[in-house]
Amino acid sequence: MNAVKKYNQRVDAINSLVCVGLDSDLNKIPDSYKKYALPQFEFNRHIMAETAEFAAAFKFNMAFYEARGEDGLKELALSVAYARDSHPDILTICDAKRSDIGNTSAAYAYAVFEELGFDAVTLNPYLGRDALQPFLDYKDKACIILCRTSNDGSGEFQNLEIDGKPLWQVVAERVATEWNTNNNCMLVVGATYPKVLEQVRAVVGDMTLLIPGIGAQGGDIETVIQSGHNSQRKGLMINSSRSIIFAEKPASATQYLRDAINACRS
Amino acid sequence: MNAVKKYNQRVDAINSLVCVGLDSDLNKIPDSYKKYALPQFEFNRHIMAETAEFAAAFKFNMAFYEARGEDGLKELALSVAYARDSHPDILTICDAKRSDIGNTSAAYAYAVFEELGFDAVTLNPYLGRDALQPFLDYKDKACIILCRTSNDGSGEFQNLEIDGKPLWQVVAERVATEWNTNNNCMLVVGATYPKVLEQVRAVVGDMTLLIPGIGAQGGDIETVIQSGHNSQRKGLMINSSRSIIFAEKPASATQYLRDAINACRS
Repeated sequence: MNAVKKYNQRVDAINSLVCVGLDSDLNKIPDSYKKYALPQFEFNRHIMAETAEFAAAFKFNMAFYEARGEDGLKELALSVAYARDSHPDILTICDAKRSDIGNTSAAYAYAVFEELGFDAVTLNPYLGRDALQPFLDYKDKACIILCRTSNDGSGEFQNLEIDGKPLWQVVAERVATEWNTNNNCMLVVGATYPKVLEQVRAVVGDMTLLIPGIGAQGGDIETVIQSGHNSQRKGLMINSSRSIIFAEKPASATQYLRDAINACRS
Repeated sequence: MNAVKKYNQRVDAINSLVCVGLDSDLNKIPDSYKKYALPQFEFNRHIMAETAEFAAAFKFNMAFYEARGEDGLKELALSVAYARDSHPDILTICDAKRSDIGNTSAAYAYAVFEELGFDAVTLNPYLGRDALQPFLDYKDKACIILCRTSNDGSGEFQNLEIDGKPLWQVVAERVATEWNTNNNCMLVVGATYPKVLEQVRAVVGDMTLLIPGIGAQGGDIETVIQSGHNSQRKGLMINSSRSIIFAEKPASATQYLRDAINACRS
């Protein structure tokens, strides 16, 4: 099944727009996991089992696995395999922000979609469409392309104006009108820029937007929903990482976020 | 020692601007290596030993290791460790084109510079300076930032004009005038765009430029040298991957490239 469709079905099945971000930094997971041979995997399995009922997507941040070398990559692979086997309806995202060209892009696409078996990957658009074509060609996988990122300095280049339009808008237009021939594209727009979110929504129709930046980074849920929902009052994937996975009760934190989001959608 | 200085010293010591690109795709290395338990490592060690005499830098393309999961990452780590121990004067580059923010960027920087122990990394500028600050803060490591990439479609965004200047030029100016406070920045400019190379050189002074795209991608050595050298007729790092590592005689291929480059510098 096409990964975008998989996400939409999950959203409808459990009435949730929540993406649980598994930023499982070994230095930050509870000490009780550190005794295991596979601490990140055991922690992830626990968090996924706890939060699955309320989760539409699981997003794995590659950095926190790569930081541990081959051991981390092994734990990442085991974690994704667990998600696929035990929670097959939940979208799995490799948050790697890949950008390369030709046969290198093809090797990355193979690594993410086949070797690791993710449903989706985040991609950086700076190199242009031809560079990302090997990813876009996987019709049943989702390509989530950076548009306006949540960091304070994201405007340094993304806000530069080209014929009166900021670069992030040019990216959104290209993806929506040219890159999305397989209906497998999504965009990343930070919760910290709600006006941008509103403008992106106006450009991309009902396309799903991945929204980082609520909670710790300061994005507000109500503003995000009002600015970003699509014609069906969904089309959003709202990520929360640390405030869920390091919460005392991850299940309650996820349920709380889902309900807070849904209160703004009704 | 600062990695930029390390590179310049190596260039002077062996009079070479050649970067050997270890794109050691398991599907393309000779069958004779596939019998080993660590085929990519054995192949890399052979290529590095053969080419070291003429190599100023070794560039490892992450994609071809990640495509093999944890096994590939292990072989990459062993390969970098070999380079560091046996050829400590040669710059090691992690070609990963990283782009992320905050604590994620910090984890990637740790992974590349500390866990794997590389001297340098390639980075994508789309997210802005604050996103890459954790990399830039490693004063003794080199940050090689994408400016104009070698692919056919690189102009899709990189050529868009902002107040009459293409985006790649804005990136080059920002890196040269604002990001390079630790004197540890370099830029990537494809050999396939020699006029761009000339203009980048005019903007960045003597900064070193990593040049992919000669050979298979069609970039011409003489044009690259004439367009891109700095005031000392160096400041370039000219990458060749497949035409060296899959050559019948990698040492001769590297020597040939070094000499062809030097003939254009004299």
